[in-house]
Amino acid sequence: MTAATRSEHDLLGDRDVPADAYWGVHTLRATENFPITGTPISAYPHLIDALAAVKEAAALANQELGLLAPEKAEAIVAACREIRAGALHDQFVVDVIQGGAGTSTNMNANEVVANRALELLGREKGQYTYLHPNEDVNLGQSTNDVYPTAVKIATVLAVRGLLKAMAVLQDSFARKAVEFRDVLKMGRTQLQDAVPMTLGQEFSAYAVMIEEDRSRLAEAVELIHEINLGATAIGTGLNASPGYAEAARRHLSEITGLPLVTAANLVEATQDCGAFVQMSGVLKRIAVKLSKSCNDLRLLSSGPRAGLGEINLPPVQAGSSIMPGKVNPVIPEVVNQVAFEVIGNDVAITMAAEAGQLQLNAFEPIILHSLSESITHLQSACLTLAERCVNGITANTERLRASVENSIGLVTALNPHIGYTAATDIAKEALVTGRGVAELVLEKGLLPAEQLAGLLRPEVLAGSGAPLA
Amino acid sequence: MTAATRSEHDLLGDRDVPADAYWGVHTLRATENFPITGTPISAYPHLIDALAAVKEAAALANQELGLLAPEKAEAIVAACREIRAGALHDQFVVDVIQGGAGTSTNMNANEVVANRALELLGREKGQYTYLHPNEDVNLGQSTNDVYPTAVKIATVLAVRGLLKAMAVLQDSFARKAVEFRDVLKMGRTQLQDAVPMTLGQEFSAYAVMIEEDRSRLAEAVELIHEINLGATAIGTGLNASPGYAEAARRHLSEITGLPLVTAANLVEATQDCGAFVQMSGVLKRIAVKLSKSCNDLRLLSSGPRAGLGEINLPPVQAGSSIMPGKVNPVIPEVVNQVAFEVIGNDVAITMAAEAGQLQLNAFEPIILHSLSESITHLQSACLTLAERCVNGITANTERLRASVENSIGLVTALNPHIGYTAATDIAKEALVTGRGVAELVLEKGLLPAEQLAGLLRPEVLAGSGAPLA
Amino acid sequence: MTAATRSEHDLLGDRDVPADAYWGVHTLRATENFPITGTPISAYPHLIDALAAVKEAAALANQELGLLAPEKAEAIVAACREIRAGALHDQFVVDVIQGGAGTSTNMNANEVVANRALELLGREKGQYTYLHPNEDVNLGQSTNDVYPTAVKIATVLAVRGLLKAMAVLQDSFARKAVEFRDVLKMGRTQLQDAVPMTLGQEFSAYAVMIEEDRSRLAEAVELIHEINLGATAIGTGLNASPGYAEAARRHLSEITGLPLVTAANLVEATQDCGAFVQMSGVLKRIAVKLSKSCNDLRLLSSGPRAGLGEINLPPVQAGSSIMPGKVNPVIPEVVNQVAFEVIGNDVAITMAAEAGQLQLNAFEPIILHSLSESITHLQSACLTLAERCVNGITANTERLRASVENSIGLVTALNPHIGYTAATDIAKEALVTGRGVAELVLEKGLLPAEQLAGLLRPEVLAGSGAPLA
Amino acid sequence: MTAATRSEHDLLGDRDVPADAYWGVHTLRATENFPITGTPISAYPHLIDALAAVKEAAALANQELGLLAPEKAEAIVAACREIRAGALHDQFVVDVIQGGAGTSTNMNANEVVANRALELLGREKGQYTYLHPNEDVNLGQSTNDVYPTAVKIATVLAVRGLLKAMAVLQDSFARKAVEFRDVLKMGRTQLQDAVPMTLGQEFSAYAVMIEEDRSRLAEAVELIHEINLGATAIGTGLNASPGYAEAARRHLSEITGLPLVTAANLVEATQDCGAFVQMSGVLKRIAVKLSKSCNDLRLLSSGPRAGLGEINLPPVQAGSSIMPGKVNPVIPEVVNQVAFEVIGNDVAITMAAEAGQLQLNAFEPIILHSLSESITHLQSACLTLAERCVNGITANTERLRASVENSIGLVTALNPHIGYTAATDIAKEALVTGRGVAELVLEKGLLPAEQLAGLLRPEVLAGSGAPLA
Repeated sequence: MTAATRSEHDLLGDRDVPADAYWGVHTLRATENFPITGTPISAYPHLIDALAAVKEAAALANQELGLLAPEKAEAIVAACREIRAGALHDQFVVDVIQGGAGTSTNMNANEVVANRALELLGREKGQYTYLHPNEDVNLGQSTNDVYPTAVKIATVLAVRGLLKAMAVLQDSFARKAVEFRDVLKMGRTQLQDAVPMTLGQEFSAYAVMIEEDRSRLAEAVELIHEINLGATAIGTGLNASPGYAEAARRHLSEITGLPLVTAANLVEATQDCGAFVQMSGVLKRIAVKLSKSCNDLRLLSSGPRAGLGEINLPPVQAGSSIMPGKVNPVIPEVVNQVAFEVIGNDVAITMAAEAGQLQLNAFEPIILHSLSESITHLQSACLTLAERCVNGITANTERLRASVENSIGLVTALNPHIGYTAATDIAKEALVTGRGVAELVLEKGLLPAEQLAGLLRPEVLAGSGAPLA
Repeated sequence: MTAATRSEHDLLGDRDVPADAYWGVHTLRATENFPITGTPISAYPHLIDALAAVKEAAALANQELGLLAPEKAEAIVAACREIRAGALHDQFVVDVIQGGAGTSTNMNANEVVANRALELLGREKGQYTYLHPNEDVNLGQSTNDVYPTAVKIATVLAVRGLLKAMAVLQDSFARKAVEFRDVLKMGRTQLQDAVPMTLGQEFSAYAVMIEEDRSRLAEAVELIHEINLGATAIGTGLNASPGYAEAARRHLSEITGLPLVTAANLVEATQDCGAFVQMSGVLKRIAVKLSKSCNDLRLLSSGPRAGLGEINLPPVQAGSSIMPGKVNPVIPEVVNQVAFEVIGNDVAITMAAEAGQLQLNAFEPIILHSLSESITHLQSACLTLAERCVNGITANTERLRASVENSIGLVTALNPHIGYTAATDIAKEALVTGRGVAELVLEKGLLPAEQLAGLLRPEVLAGSGAPLA
Repeated sequence: MTAATRSEHDLLGDRDVPADAYWGVHTLRATENFPITGTPISAYPHLIDALAAVKEAAALANQELGLLAPEKAEAIVAACREIRAGALHDQFVVDVIQGGAGTSTNMNANEVVANRALELLGREKGQYTYLHPNEDVNLGQSTNDVYPTAVKIATVLAVRGLLKAMAVLQDSFARKAVEFRDVLKMGRTQLQDAVPMTLGQEFSAYAVMIEEDRSRLAEAVELIHEINLGATAIGTGLNASPGYAEAARRHLSEITGLPLVTAANLVEATQDCGAFVQMSGVLKRIAVKLSKSCNDLRLLSSGPRAGLGEINLPPVQAGSSIMPGKVNPVIPEVVNQVAFEVIGNDVAITMAAEAGQLQLNAFEPIILHSLSESITHLQSACLTLAERCVNGITANTERLRASVENSIGLVTALNPHIGYTAATDIAKEALVTGRGVAELVLEKGLLPAEQLAGLLRPEVLAGSGAPLA
Repeated sequence: MTAATRSEHDLLGDRDVPADAYWGVHTLRATENFPITGTPISAYPHLIDALAAVKEAAALANQELGLLAPEKAEAIVAACREIRAGALHDQFVVDVIQGGAGTSTNMNANEVVANRALELLGREKGQYTYLHPNEDVNLGQSTNDVYPTAVKIATVLAVRGLLKAMAVLQDSFARKAVEFRDVLKMGRTQLQDAVPMTLGQEFSAYAVMIEEDRSRLAEAVELIHEINLGATAIGTGLNASPGYAEAARRHLSEITGLPLVTAANLVEATQDCGAFVQMSGVLKRIAVKLSKSCNDLRLLSSGPRAGLGEINLPPVQAGSSIMPGKVNPVIPEVVNQVAFEVIGNDVAITMAAEAGQLQLNAFEPIILHSLSESITHLQSACLTLAERCVNGITANTERLRASVENSIGLVTALNPHIGYTAATDIAKEALVTGRGVAELVLEKGLLPAEQLAGLLRPEVLAGSGAPLA
């Protein structure tokens, strides 16, 4: 009969852990200490993969430097590869928001890797004399270099997904820009009728916004490739062998396929959360633009009769439990809400970064949590917006064209030909009488009919300021 | 010939100050140390008045307790009254954002009061042996009780102005609610046509929002009446005589006419900025509502032709340097911006409050600055919105009525009489064909004409849910 | 053999849903439309309970008014009671962040209640001709009154838990205040040595802070008791019978035991999120204070040797994977992070509230999510802080006393007796020579030894400004 | 006798303006419409210079294209050059926070330039038939391209000053890093004693932080060089001649010396505030780092006796009105407050950017105001911090060295030599007994004295992780 528990020891004494748990006493205490969100770190698979990659890289570096016996190193590497292949993620059980600068996350990783490696070595879980979570798996490392490095790699991996989702959304907008390239409409400034443009130009702007933001995000993620592995506790590299930092970085780059760079000043790098603040700032920028675009989509599709009614969003669900036939812009609305969340997360990240003291920022767990949430929710939002909304948008072409023909804003185009004063008079009279600008201009003989027609041709009105993407 | 300067002495040595300056060496150093915003505290007249009131109350209390000679007390009181009557404000020259928890502001006040009192005693400015800024004007006080107390009184005074401005705006909205009580229009949810209502109900909601916010603001300002005068440095009251705190509070209440209360726990009161955070939170609530109302006004007045065009804002300036005849909703737009500023200030105040350490919050100057800005800008915004926008709003009654008659949302009112399924079919057909709901219902014989007319009467449609304010 | 699916119909057509699902086609579409957070609304049990309470109250009101057949009403009521007893929560599957102003949440509730009620009536799930999610369960209701009402009730329920947790933490601090009432220490302002106090006074301040915040929270939750049930779509009460709003409120009050009030102006109430903004503002206030207190605890326990070392936090886990014997303040650290999260959530809630348009705020789902997170995480944080940190704090009494005796700040207490100028000289000399204030005063014959001893007695030094709570 | 006023005309009718005012009727109305902050745009000299540069560039482009008579162009150019040389700034009187997307600012500029140009042409102010604010000075322009372009140029100019100030502060920290390169001290993580380092390494980290932030700021300001001049109202370039956009950009680059680029998609560029959001995000990053560094400085200089007392900040003013001899860290405190302000401004900018609608963001005035405030206050803060604080910092070398020798953290350095278990035992015993690590290691014979001394040499302890900058 197998025992249900095994006993483990730490600074505070002995504790029983379930015999089949790959985690150990440090993880046990952490789960008791941080009953905050109920969300374990296993909900952040990129982080688990990144932790395993760091542990693997460290083991290979330590083996290479002769500090770790080959059989230990091989067992650790094998365990890490299993984890990166998706195994044992359910053993990462500590709460994502935790005190201790990520120590509990690091110890959870050390214990799971150690116990799996022990099994691979033919030992029992908990037989740490053969392979120790701290002395072997964590060799040459500190939470203070492991955790930030893992968070950075996890962020890079997550951002990749967001970049792809943004490209999908950009394509959706760009396709609509082409589809609507000849649809003339009134442009608006300050919600007041301004001058004509095409609906294609309007959608092209959304595509370009996302394109620019993708560039900014790609730049910001570059900064995240700078790691502090080898810094150990405070950046002085105490207890890390010469050559370890470089060897670990090299292995980690190979494992992850990422062009990682070791920070030039490890003391600074160990306490500085600037790259996370900037990443969050760029996510906020993306959120602001997405939210603005969704505000526009909701406004342009307002109606169906008492609104602008310029475009139609595809219906994806019944809109109302009381109003028959009502369809609501639910997809843009959910994207707006993700944007608000991202903007809120940015404040949380800012406060956490500001709160760092002396040689360490102890608040990186909330940074990890908030950044991950912002990135993954933005990714879902972009894909949902593209697939369930933008792709199905149609234009009310006739209504749009009529609004141009009916518009007082046309007078702006005549301004250089009839003068600002005459143009203002026409505008005033059109507003008061409800009549059309063209008709008034002809009536007053301000321009010959032919010239007027030429000035009001769509390609002239919509100009050339915004080539399609 | 008069000397251009006089020499003063402090912990760091001797310095010359202009002979005609009422401020002294402490103020001089502060102006050199904090060249940050360029805005002196004289730009916050409520604060200057409040400081003078505190100094006057302290002098009276000290005289009453036999700690300050009557002639000194009388000179201090007279100087403070002159300041509260508007004199010498230009002598309050330290930058509003300053280090030192307000010490420089307190010392500026001590010096100005002392030098004016010296003059009243027939002495020269700077003859501190006869009356000393620290030992007499500041007797029994510390910056740590004077400054928070003055900031609270200044806030109470400022909030009075805001409450009045909000009442003005509420009245403006309420008058329009009465004026528009019979103007039927389509209500909208999620920017989609919903069910009918009156424009009066719409404006009534704005009036009620402000009324509620006034109540919340009045509650929040109550909390600001709790002061810590008598706490001295850290709340233990060291060096303040027994009876001083109560006497000073009594005099300060009399001088200001405010029902001030001394905090039960002065150690807590000296380090706690909770009341400021809450006040700012309520200001943010007001900003959110104002901004939402202005967003609505801009949307409802969009057009004149390619927008909703339901109401007209009074033109207050030409809207465009290029588009003749364009008029923009500039007043709501400026109110929106004040709202964004207030929301940003709330974050600054939050961070400052969180940053307090141990027995004191050293960051109250930015709290004062941000709170004052939020309050006074909201006050200007409310008055401007009332006077230059809301009062002049007119309704496009015919367009509004037509939108109801033309609306698919009418079908909701028929729902209980023809059933949800039939109603949905009518809604769909109306949308596809562009025809009216009433006409389709009659054509299909779903309801007799008389009953239908009854169901579509304005008073039925607009319901009774929202009595006019 | 049972079919694996049943077919349901909505505005967009037919869809198969799993035969054993209590939810239906509207829920199905919502799960497809909003793949955002992965967190279903079942993770918010207070919300599920509140929804069931609203549905139950509405059914009772409709039965009372003769609008709903008794057998239908009874089945609905029975289903709702089961849900409130904990059943079927797993059937609430829509994502918490959703477009549509909560319509999907409301429809999820309507469908689950309807299908369970159908079973209780001896029918099959999906046989809506016998009892319909919209026409019966949702009778007289709209998402726009159901959802805000449910969110408010859920908030009230959640706040109860937070208030209790805060009381626990307050007690912990208060007990320590008593325990440490005679432990003399140096108070600090701006991190500089100020004047003496007791450690009891310091902890008393923390207890009082929480006590005040509990009062503010209790006030804010009062505002949440105002509901808009009966408003239907936009507050005009269209399609709700006279008497319905009052009957529904009465039943809902009885079911929940809460003194609910119907808003006086339902149009305003339906579009206004002010009460949520204010609630979040108060939660932010609490977060700010908690974070400040935790900053202090971390600072006071810094060391063990190169820090302040005034108090010891109980060790709850090993602190470092690299530094033997290190113990970190992990519990205050996790509380700080919760505070940052709450402050970020406040910004998200603010933005969502500001984004409401015309007759509705479509963004209440993110408000629900953020408020719930803030409340429940603060609750966990308070309990964890009390139980795993504050209760076990011990004082380094000797070190604290020595710091007072050794302090230059003592000179402030002598100020009224030897004069500010002499006091400043003593302070300077003490700083330069490293000698003690008392010894210098005696040496210079400024005060007789006996008087000096009297002035430096602890009870004199610590004053009476802050009675123990 | 000269008339005191002249009459001007606009869309709303006639108004008298002071005869000696260079501004006209549009400016007059704006000052009446926006009585918000009391701060005129003249308080933003970079903006005035930028506006003049834009007007000059436009005039040159229009002349080049044959659209503006040479004598008019020359007069406009001359007027603009006078303004850029510092003249007439007091004529820029509209409130910085204004509705209308900057129209009032643009019109204020048009009027001042026109009236000064009229004088140069030998005409009277107000004789607009000879040179018109709109038709000549604003020729080919719209507020919607002029204002964003001017705000960008003003931002670039302001950022230059900030970059220089940051370089000054970086140098100050770097010099201290060299000065303190041999001062051994205990490093701390989570405020707990960790492992040794040098004070030079600590200050080096501050220097590197600023260096990195300067790089990020330089990158962000690059994005600000993309302008939309030539877009006119909505980006379609309506009424701007072919070749105008390029000619205007070329002249503006020459005038300002900046490598300006015209946006590829002018419709997008006219509505997009992303570059401002990103700039503000980077300013927030800088603020976070500055605040963190100042928190550290205040902590390290806490005391003088009951604090860490590791460094001394130069006294710059007496610290207390009640505590003799107290000196406070007032300079870092004021920098903290600027940081909080910048973080709050970032939220205001974010909200303003998100609130843009369709073809324009009407809220750029608050963006200008907040960005300018953040940049100029950060600049003042950096210079003040360098000159009045960092440059005068001294180290308490003996106390620092003693803290290392006395430290339990030394045991970490012995960890690889005596093993983790033995090290933990030593640490525990040192903590309980108050004895030293080295003495215990020797007593237990764990290491020979010579090897122990070698391991504890400063250069070994402080490692090589952080080379001096």
